[in-house]
Amino acid sequence: MNSFIIDPILRRALEEDIGTGDVTTLATIEPGTQASAELVAKEDFVLSGIDVAKRVFQLLSAETAFEKLIIDGQAVKRGEVLAWIKGDAAVLLQGERVALNLLQRMCGVATLTAAFVRAVEGTRAVVVDTRKTTPGLRVLEKYSVRMGGGGNHRMALYDAVLIKENHVAAAGGITAAVRRAKQRVPHTQKIEVEVRNQDEVAEALAANADILLLDNMTLAELSAAVELVGNQAITEASGGVNLETVRDIAETGVRLISVGALTHSYRSVDISMLFV
Amino acid sequence: MNSFIIDPILRRALEEDIGTGDVTTLATIEPGTQASAELVAKEDFVLSGIDVAKRVFQLLSAETAFEKLIIDGQAVKRGEVLAWIKGDAAVLLQGERVALNLLQRMCGVATLTAAFVRAVEGTRAVVVDTRKTTPGLRVLEKYSVRMGGGGNHRMALYDAVLIKENHVAAAGGITAAVRRAKQRVPHTQKIEVEVRNQDEVAEALAANADILLLDNMTLAELSAAVELVGNQAITEASGGVNLETVRDIAETGVRLISVGALTHSYRSVDISMLFV
Amino acid sequence: MNSFIIDPILRRALEEDIGTGDVTTLATIEPGTQASAELVAKEDFVLSGIDVAKRVFQLLSAETAFEKLIIDGQAVKRGEVLAWIKGDAAVLLQGERVALNLLQRMCGVATLTAAFVRAVEGTRAVVVDTRKTTPGLRVLEKYSVRMGGGGNHRMALYDAVLIKENHVAAAGGITAAVRRAKQRVPHTQKIEVEVRNQDEVAEALAANADILLLDNMTLAELSAAVELVGNQAITEASGGVNLETVRDIAETGVRLISVGALTHSYRSVDISMLFV
Amino acid sequence: MNSFIIDPILRRALEEDIGTGDVTTLATIEPGTQASAELVAKEDFVLSGIDVAKRVFQLLSAETAFEKLIIDGQAVKRGEVLAWIKGDAAVLLQGERVALNLLQRMCGVATLTAAFVRAVEGTRAVVVDTRKTTPGLRVLEKYSVRMGGGGNHRMALYDAVLIKENHVAAAGGITAAVRRAKQRVPHTQKIEVEVRNQDEVAEALAANADILLLDNMTLAELSAAVELVGNQAITEASGGVNLETVRDIAETGVRLISVGALTHSYRSVDISMLFV
Amino acid sequence: MNSFIIDPILRRALEEDIGTGDVTTLATIEPGTQASAELVAKEDFVLSGIDVAKRVFQLLSAETAFEKLIIDGQAVKRGEVLAWIKGDAAVLLQGERVALNLLQRMCGVATLTAAFVRAVEGTRAVVVDTRKTTPGLRVLEKYSVRMGGGGNHRMALYDAVLIKENHVAAAGGITAAVRRAKQRVPHTQKIEVEVRNQDEVAEALAANADILLLDNMTLAELSAAVELVGNQAITEASGGVNLETVRDIAETGVRLISVGALTHSYRSVDISMLFV
Amino acid sequence: MNSFIIDPILRRALEEDIGTGDVTTLATIEPGTQASAELVAKEDFVLSGIDVAKRVFQLLSAETAFEKLIIDGQAVKRGEVLAWIKGDAAVLLQGERVALNLLQRMCGVATLTAAFVRAVEGTRAVVVDTRKTTPGLRVLEKYSVRMGGGGNHRMALYDAVLIKENHVAAAGGITAAVRRAKQRVPHTQKIEVEVRNQDEVAEALAANADILLLDNMTLAELSAAVELVGNQAITEASGGVNLETVRDIAETGVRLISVGALTHSYRSVDISMLFV
Repeated sequence: MNSFIIDPILRRALEEDIGTGDVTTLATIEPGTQASAELVAKEDFVLSGIDVAKRVFQLLSAETAFEKLIIDGQAVKRGEVLAWIKGDAAVLLQGERVALNLLQRMCGVATLTAAFVRAVEGTRAVVVDTRKTTPGLRVLEKYSVRMGGGGNHRMALYDAVLIKENHVAAAGGITAAVRRAKQRVPHTQKIEVEVRNQDEVAEALAANADILLLDNMTLAELSAAVELVGNQAITEASGGVNLETVRDIAETGVRLISVGALTHSYRSVDISMLFV
Repeated sequence: MNSFIIDPILRRALEEDIGTGDVTTLATIEPGTQASAELVAKEDFVLSGIDVAKRVFQLLSAETAFEKLIIDGQAVKRGEVLAWIKGDAAVLLQGERVALNLLQRMCGVATLTAAFVRAVEGTRAVVVDTRKTTPGLRVLEKYSVRMGGGGNHRMALYDAVLIKENHVAAAGGITAAVRRAKQRVPHTQKIEVEVRNQDEVAEALAANADILLLDNMTLAELSAAVELVGNQAITEASGGVNLETVRDIAETGVRLISVGALTHSYRSVDISMLFV
Repeated sequence: MNSFIIDPILRRALEEDIGTGDVTTLATIEPGTQASAELVAKEDFVLSGIDVAKRVFQLLSAETAFEKLIIDGQAVKRGEVLAWIKGDAAVLLQGERVALNLLQRMCGVATLTAAFVRAVEGTRAVVVDTRKTTPGLRVLEKYSVRMGGGGNHRMALYDAVLIKENHVAAAGGITAAVRRAKQRVPHTQKIEVEVRNQDEVAEALAANADILLLDNMTLAELSAAVELVGNQAITEASGGVNLETVRDIAETGVRLISVGALTHSYRSVDISMLFV
Repeated sequence: MNSFIIDPILRRALEEDIGTGDVTTLATIEPGTQASAELVAKEDFVLSGIDVAKRVFQLLSAETAFEKLIIDGQAVKRGEVLAWIKGDAAVLLQGERVALNLLQRMCGVATLTAAFVRAVEGTRAVVVDTRKTTPGLRVLEKYSVRMGGGGNHRMALYDAVLIKENHVAAAGGITAAVRRAKQRVPHTQKIEVEVRNQDEVAEALAANADILLLDNMTLAELSAAVELVGNQAITEASGGVNLETVRDIAETGVRLISVGALTHSYRSVDISMLFV
Repeated sequence: MNSFIIDPILRRALEEDIGTGDVTTLATIEPGTQASAELVAKEDFVLSGIDVAKRVFQLLSAETAFEKLIIDGQAVKRGEVLAWIKGDAAVLLQGERVALNLLQRMCGVATLTAAFVRAVEGTRAVVVDTRKTTPGLRVLEKYSVRMGGGGNHRMALYDAVLIKENHVAAAGGITAAVRRAKQRVPHTQKIEVEVRNQDEVAEALAANADILLLDNMTLAELSAAVELVGNQAITEASGGVNLETVRDIAETGVRLISVGALTHSYRSVDISMLFV
Repeated sequence: MNSFIIDPILRRALEEDIGTGDVTTLATIEPGTQASAELVAKEDFVLSGIDVAKRVFQLLSAETAFEKLIIDGQAVKRGEVLAWIKGDAAVLLQGERVALNLLQRMCGVATLTAAFVRAVEGTRAVVVDTRKTTPGLRVLEKYSVRMGGGGNHRMALYDAVLIKENHVAAAGGITAAVRRAKQRVPHTQKIEVEVRNQDEVAEALAANADILLLDNMTLAELSAAVELVGNQAITEASGGVNLETVRDIAETGVRLISVGALTHSYRSVDISMLFV
C-alpha cells in the first residue's frame, strides 16, 4: 500500500474532520508551537495501519517526524508505545483523531482476523475476507486482514467471477453459467460457483469451475462435498461462520473459510495519543 | 441528508466495488433482463439508511423502482420486509453489496444508539456521539445516531470549540484559553472545556465556558460537578461509558453523555436482499 | 489557513488562467531563464493574503523563493515593497496574475473592514462579516475580515443556527422554532433568531435564544432592544449598515454589527509586480 | 454558457455554503414543505446571470420551478420582479444565498460595464475586459461584460499571445519577440504587443504585430499612435481608464479600451428573494 | 459498459475540447436552432462504440435524440448510415469531434482485432489484448477487442498475477516466485508465468502455474511447449505477432495469442457526421 | 509542458493500471529492493515525451533517479539508450507500462509528423495538426507534433474561430457568419473560414477572414485559390492529405497543410525498458 493508493482516502478523511479549519487550535495554540506525542496501546491487539497513521500527519505537514517502534502484523501488549511523533503542535492536534480513527479500526480488523486464524490453527483452512467491507476503506481493511494472518478473497466485482444463485437462475443452470463465463471473461480470472448441495457440487465440477463456494452447508454436507471435490477444485465454506463454529468447519477439510464479520463487525481497539 | 451531500460517498463506494465492471454479471446476465428483490430484516433492529440504499440503486439507473415500506427511526422485527426493488437485473446485482454494506452499518449505529437511549430513559441525559466515526462516513453515522434517538455532538473541528487538556496547557490555563477563544472564534460558536476536577470546573465556570466536558470522573465527582454547575453551563460526561455504566452516569444529573462506541464499535445488522 | 485548505482554490485559479499553457511565455522566454520581482503597494491599504501569493508561486514550482517583508494585518503605505520573488521567469510570469488577483481582493476586504472597525472605535461593537461572500473564496475573505480587525460570523449554513423570518413562519412562531432547534441541533451550536420589534425580542428572550439579530431597526429601536436584552443574550445589528451609519449603530450598545459590504462590495487595491 | 461549463462552479459554491447540511432548515422546516418566492430588484441595474440563479436551485432539486421574467442584458428598474421560484422550501432556503451571491455580482459587472459603454457611445471604441477577474468566476464575469455591452479580451494565457515588457526584454526586443511568437504559436492566434512610445509602435508594426496595446499613454500619445497605425493593426488602450477618462481616450480613435475595473472593482447590486 | 464507467472519460474529453466554450458556435448559431445529422461509414469496418457516441451527445443535452441503426460487433460497409442524431444544433456541433474521435478509434481497434481473428479461424487459438493500451481509454479499447471477436487479457496490474523475468530474478527462480504468489494473492486469481525455454516450461508446470506465457519462442519451440504442457496449464504465445505470423503461431496449438498491436498500433477508421 | 499540466493525465493513467495494487510485485518483490533499468530504442524514430516518462516514475516515488541521454525532438537510432532509471524495484516495475504506453505513442506522433515535414521540405508549407486527437491526450500529442517539426492548429473549440459549412448555413452565408464572429468573439482571436470553391474564396476575402481553409480542393483549385488570396489571408489546405499527396499540395503554395493522420493514425514506436 503505497501513498499513491491511500492518499485520496486520507485526504478525504482530513477534509471531513478539518474542513475550513480547526477553530479550537486556531484560538488557543500560537503558530509555530512544537509538540511531541506517543501512540500508546490501551489493550492487547494485533497492529495494522501504523504507516497509515504516519501518513496522516505527513500529509498535514511533510516536516512531522514519526518514528514507528512496532510494525504491522505484530502482537502488541497493553501499555506498549507504538510510535513517537514530533512536530508542529497544530498538526499533531489536527491529525490526531483521523489517525486514530483509521488505526483503531485497522487494528480491530487485524485483531479479529487473528482470533479466527488461531481458532483454525493446525488445519489446512485459510481464513479469508469478503466484500462486506466498510465503503471507502476496503483496501485498508483487506490489508488488515492480511496483517492478522488471513487471506484475501477477490477485491471487488471486477477481479474474479463468483456465480451465485441469481446468476445461475438467469443463465439457465450452473453448466450454462460456467460455460458462458469461460467464454466471456479473461482467461486470467478464476471462476467460482456457489453450490448448495451435492448435486450442484457435481455439476460445478463437471463444468470445470475453479472454486466451489459451499454456502450454508452443515458440517456433514461440507465433509461430503470436500471428499467429492478432492483435488478437482478449491473448496470454500461460507455462512454461519463465527469463533464458535469456525474450528469445526475447518476440520471438514475445506481449503478456505470466508468470514464477513472480519470487516463488518469488528470493534475499534483502544489506542491513545499522549502528548509529552 | 439530500443527494447533494451523500452522492459523492455513494459514487465512491460504487466505484470501489464495481471499478471497470462486474465480470460475473457481464458473463451471465443477458442485457435487459429485469428482476425484483426485497430487502428483509434477518434480526431485530432500528432502521437507518433506507433512502441511502434507494439512492445507491438509482445512481446506477434512474429507472430502478424502490418502494420503502418502513422509514428511518422505526424499530424493525426479524422477517419484516424493508423495501421492494424492481429494475434491471444487472443494476440490482451490482448495487446489492454497496447498498447492504451501507444500510447494515447505519442500522448498526442506530440500533446501538437506541440501546443506550433506552438505558437512560427517564433521566434528563441525552446520549450523543463523538468524532470517533468511520472516516468518510461521518454524516451517515451521525444521521443514524439521530435515528436511534441520540443527539449529535459537533460535526467536526470546524463547527465548535472544544478546549482539551493540551490546548489548556498551550494557552497557559483554562481562563486564558477560554478568553482567547472568545476573542478569536465566531460569536455563533459555543465554547466547551474539558475539566478533570472541581477546581477546573470552578475555573471554567468563572471563565464563562458554555459547556463543561466532565472527563473520566467518578460518579461522585460527576454529581458534585453537576451540583456546582447548576444552570451556569451545560454538563457533558465522557469516558468509560458503556451499557453497564451509562444509567448510573445519567442519574448524576448530567445533561449529555457522549459515547464513542456508538460509531466506533457497532456491529452491522443482518439484512438480506432476496430476489423474487 | 494552511495549504491543506487553500491549495484547491489556488490550483483551480491557476488552471483557469493557464489551462493548456501560457503561449506567450512559451514563445518568448527561453526555458531556464531566471528572474526577480517585487510586489509593490501602489496605494495605502491593510495587507491580507501575502502567504496566499507566496503559495501560488510555489505551487507552480517549489523552487521559487518568496521573501515577505510585511505580514498580514499590517497597514501598508503606497510605495512599500511587500515581498521579493526570485525563480524561473516562466513561473513568475505565469503566477503573476493569479497571485495579484487574489492578493488585491484580500487586501480590499481587509482595508474596507479596517475602515468600519476604525469607525466604531471606542464602542463595544465588533464588526463582523456575513455569508454574502464571493462563491469559492469564502475562507480567504473571512480570513481577510479578521486581518482587517473584524470578527467572523458563522462560516456557512452548517455551523450555527440562524432562524430567519421564513423559518419562524414555517415553524409556527419564534417560540416553536427555537424549541425545535434546541431539540434537533448539536448542543455545541448557538441559536440566533432574527427579530424585528420589541415583541419579538421579548419572545426570543423567553425562548432562551443565544443571539438576537436585530434586523433593519431604527436607532431608537436598537437602543430599546439592547436595553431590554441586557445580559440575557448577545445582540447583533444588521441592515442599512455603511460607513456613514455604523458609528451611530455602534453607540446603541449592540455587541455585534454584521456588514455584507465587507465581502460583497469591496474594491481591489492596487499592487504591482515589478520585474527587477 | 451551458450547464456543462457552469455546473462545477455552482456545485462548489453550494458545497461551500451547505457543507454537511443546513442546520437551521433541518431544525425548523418540516420535510416536504412547499414555498414560493420572487427575485426582486432593489435598485436599477443591468441583468446578468438569471440562468445561473435558476441552475443553482435546479442543482439542489430538478423539481424546482423557476420562471424568469427578464432576460440577461436588459436594464432593470428598482422594484421589478426578475423571476418566480416555486418548490421545496428547504431547497429555496438553501439555494437563496448562493444564487444571490452569484447573481448580484454578475449584475454588478454588467452594470459597471454598461456605464463605460454609455460613456463611449458614438465613438468607435469597444470597451473590453482583462484577466483581472475573480479567481474561479472568470467565465461568469466575462459573460457579464458581454451582457453589459462590452467585449471580451482573451480568456486566459492559453488563447492569445500578449507580449509585454518582460517578454520583450527576455526575447531581446520587440522584433525578436514577435518573430519567435509567429514561429511558435498556432497560426490561429493573433499576436498583441505592449508598446509605450512611438518608436515601439513603429517597431511593432514593422514586425507585423496584429494588435498594439498602447499602455499608459497620454491622450496626445494615443492620438499619435492611432494615426501612425492606421489600418495596419488593431489599437487597444489600457491604463488609467475610469469613467472620467474613458470618453477622452475613446475619442483618440483607439479601437479597444481594456478596463480592469469591470471585473476587479465592481459592486454587488441589491436583489432580494422574497418568500410569498 | 454502463454510463457509470464511461461518463468520467467522456466528460474529460468534452472538457478538453470545449473548455470555456465553442466560440464559433457561440458566434454563428442562434440559440435554439435545431439540426439533424447522420453518422456515415466512409470505409468498411467493424463497429464499436456506437453507445459511446450516443452518450457524448446526451451528456451535452439529455434532450438529444440518437437512433442507432447498427449495433457494436457488426461489420459495416462503406456508405452505411450508423445512426441518426437530432437535437440542438450547438450540441451536435460541439459533440461531433469528441464523438468521432472516440468512435473512430474504437472501430479501429475492433477492425484490427477482427483481422487477427479471421487469420486464426479454424484453430483453437483465441486472440487477446495486452496492457499496451492508450492511457485513459483502456476500458473502451478492451471492449472494442471483444467487439472485434477477440478476448481480454487481465485488465491491469491488480486483477491477475503475471510473473515476468524480473520478478523471477528478484524472487530467486520460477519455483520460488510461484510459491510466494500462491501464498500471497487471493485464491481467486490465476498465476501466469513468463517462460522462455522448455526447462522453464517444465519448472513452471511443476510449480503448478495456471498459465504459461511462451514469450518470443520460435514455432518449433512453441509446438514443443504446447505438447509438453498438454492439459496441465493454459498456453499463451506472445512476441513477434503480426498478421503475417499469427496463423502459423496459432497452428502450433497454443490456446491464446496476445497481440499488443490491437491497441497500440491501430488506425482510426473514417466516419463522417453529415448534417441533413 | 510543466507538471502542472501533465500530472493529472499521468495520475489517471497510473490509477488505471495500478488501481488497488500490483499483485505480482506485491507477491514476488521484497519491499526495499533496488533496481536499475534503461530505456532502449528498438527502431529508428524521433523522440518525444522523455520528460513525461521521467515524471511517471517520479510521481510513484520522488526518490527515483532518471537521467535522460537524449532530448525531445532528436532523431534516435535503433539500439540507442534514451535514459537510465534507478530506484525502488517496485516503482520501476509499476511505472514501466504507463511510461512506455505514453512515450511510445508520443514518439509515434513525432515520427509520423517528421515524415510529413520532410516530404514538404523546401516549400513554404507548414504541416499542422487538427482536433482529431486521442481524447485525454491532446496536449501530449500536440506537443509531439511540434517535436516532429510540425506546427499546431488551434488547441480546441475555445481558442479560435473556424467557421465550417454548417455554421455558414446556419448564419445565412459566409459574409454574415464572418461579420457575426467579428462582433462576438474576442479581438484576439483570428477567424478562419472553410471554403470549397473560388466564389467562396472571394466572399471570405471580401469579409476579411483571417485564414481560409481550402477543403478537399484539387491541386489546380488550390493553386488558383492561393493565387487569388495572395497576401490578403493565410491559406490552409486540408482533406486527402497523406505522404503521397502532401508534396504536391505543398507545391501549390499553400501556407499550411493540416493533417488529421498525425494524431489519429500513428503507430506506437518500439521501445524497451531493460532491467540491468
